[in-house]
Amino acid sequence: MERVAVGIDIGGTNIEVGVVDKQGNILLSFRWKTQDFPKAEDFVAQLSQAMEKLLANNEWRIIGIGIGAPTANYYTGAIEYAPNMPWQGIIPLQRMTYEATGIPTKLTNDANAVAHGELVFGAGREMKHFSVITLGTGLGSGIVVDGRVLYGHHGLAGEFGHVQVDPRGRQCSCGRRGCLETYVSIRGIELTYRELGGDRQLNPRDIYLLAQQGDRVAVETYKRTAQILGNKLADLVHLYDPEAIFLYGGVANAHPLIIPEAQAEMERQLLKAFRGKVKILPSQLLDKKGAVLGAAALIWEDEK
Amino acid sequence: MERVAVGIDIGGTNIEVGVVDKQGNILLSFRWKTQDFPKAEDFVAQLSQAMEKLLANNEWRIIGIGIGAPTANYYTGAIEYAPNMPWQGIIPLQRMTYEATGIPTKLTNDANAVAHGELVFGAGREMKHFSVITLGTGLGSGIVVDGRVLYGHHGLAGEFGHVQVDPRGRQCSCGRRGCLETYVSIRGIELTYRELGGDRQLNPRDIYLLAQQGDRVAVETYKRTAQILGNKLADLVHLYDPEAIFLYGGVANAHPLIIPEAQAEMERQLLKAFRGKVKILPSQLLDKKGAVLGAAALIWEDEK
Repeated sequence: MERVAVGIDIGGTNIEVGVVDKQGNILLSFRWKTQDFPKAEDFVAQLSQAMEKLLANNEWRIIGIGIGAPTANYYTGAIEYAPNMPWQGIIPLQRMTYEATGIPTKLTNDANAVAHGELVFGAGREMKHFSVITLGTGLGSGIVVDGRVLYGHHGLAGEFGHVQVDPRGRQCSCGRRGCLETYVSIRGIELTYRELGGDRQLNPRDIYLLAQQGDRVAVETYKRTAQILGNKLADLVHLYDPEAIFLYGGVANAHPLIIPEAQAEMERQLLKAFRGKVKILPSQLLDKKGAVLGAAALIWEDEK
Repeated sequence: MERVAVGIDIGGTNIEVGVVDKQGNILLSFRWKTQDFPKAEDFVAQLSQAMEKLLANNEWRIIGIGIGAPTANYYTGAIEYAPNMPWQGIIPLQRMTYEATGIPTKLTNDANAVAHGELVFGAGREMKHFSVITLGTGLGSGIVVDGRVLYGHHGLAGEFGHVQVDPRGRQCSCGRRGCLETYVSIRGIELTYRELGGDRQLNPRDIYLLAQQGDRVAVETYKRTAQILGNKLADLVHLYDPEAIFLYGGVANAHPLIIPEAQAEMERQLLKAFRGKVKILPSQLLDKKGAVLGAAALIWEDEK
């Protein structure tokens, strides 16, 4: 029997499940609609059935289940007040999953899951200090320090989306003004495009395609986004001193436009001692199911 | 023979030396003028003689020498281009000291030394995640993560003085605009006092005394300083998720005026999940020779 881990990426729209071997190959994957599970108990029951099926033909031994989910806390094993999920309040998903399946389970938030994935299956094979920035609806981060994902005292470390770019800046949904994710995220890019006079309701992917064709407003939108990101990455470098910074998530697919401008601005804003030392790169998991791999990495990293 | 460590705090004006026991008691201390040593070799020769004298009466066994110095790199053991020192360029002080004395030597920068001290002799006895902010001519920081001082990939982590408060803010000597230390430091406080109409060239200690007497401009100076600090400490909490933040250094003696305002502003700027969880406190080494204790802690921490 081959030993495998199950990685699960829970989002507001879809739940992706993958069977992942020790080398990071996804041997099998499938997807459910999050809305099909009005309660977390419904999801856990369905998952338990699926695990039984996976084990039925005696081909695999599942050594653990790793789960990445929004606002999940690694220390408590609970999803805590996820804003875009049908499951409300505090959901002790780690314990529920273990009790239903009998399989050891770990839980972390979605950005940290990608950092675990990068650590086990990507850049972490050669680096001990790096940061992963996830660019999607919001901006998340997973920080690797001395070869381990940083969780801090309350399990909440790495909220890079909520460092302040400008005290008089855009209103953030968190209540603060000028948070980085109000500029560098899907919503931030869309707003910048409209502020610059873009005349349609386009998403970042459309704007990226326009920019590739040389559209002036689209090019300027990505330039400003990348400059703001690069400026705040200088703060991140000053604080964590990583070897490299990796970009992940839907918006990161525009990395050919984002990275050169962000890198140049970061260099301008860095202390001299740091200049020329820290590279911004696309995540090595960018073209893969990184969140599923990352969730599975929660299990495999114990064997490294 | 009692086992002791020697802690040395090298500054632009003075070099403080202390003999420190395992409990953090300073058994003996003395001070040299930095300017009396035009070259680092002169200092090392003097230190070597002093160590021989300390050992002469067979009372102590020196298990190690710890040194804190500006722009010192923990990984390389060198002072690198210190701006306010007579010794220019790259000084491999760790190796020089070991070769002259035969005693194992460690070197780190001044802010990180205080963090090592807090870790070994102060708050670290009960906490694994905390940050130390040193408020002096500039603003430095030492970050403790999982019970260890964070150095990052190049040994440069924790430059909290150079996170950006405002992209249109004060010009920093590092070249960037709006760095935190242009506001929250001796020079920053003096400038704020003058900008608010303070009519004399006072230092932060004088301004603090005036503020205690109710002087309006002095009170407002500390209020603004504390608010800017509190705002950026929210960024620090979002990134590192510490259990507490400790203030150290000359300016931190004004903590009765700084901490309540900084704590209130930090709470306003924090994500909801962090509110009410992270305390700003005076360093437990504030009234002691914290930099000497911290340098000695570099040696003692290997025995914890």
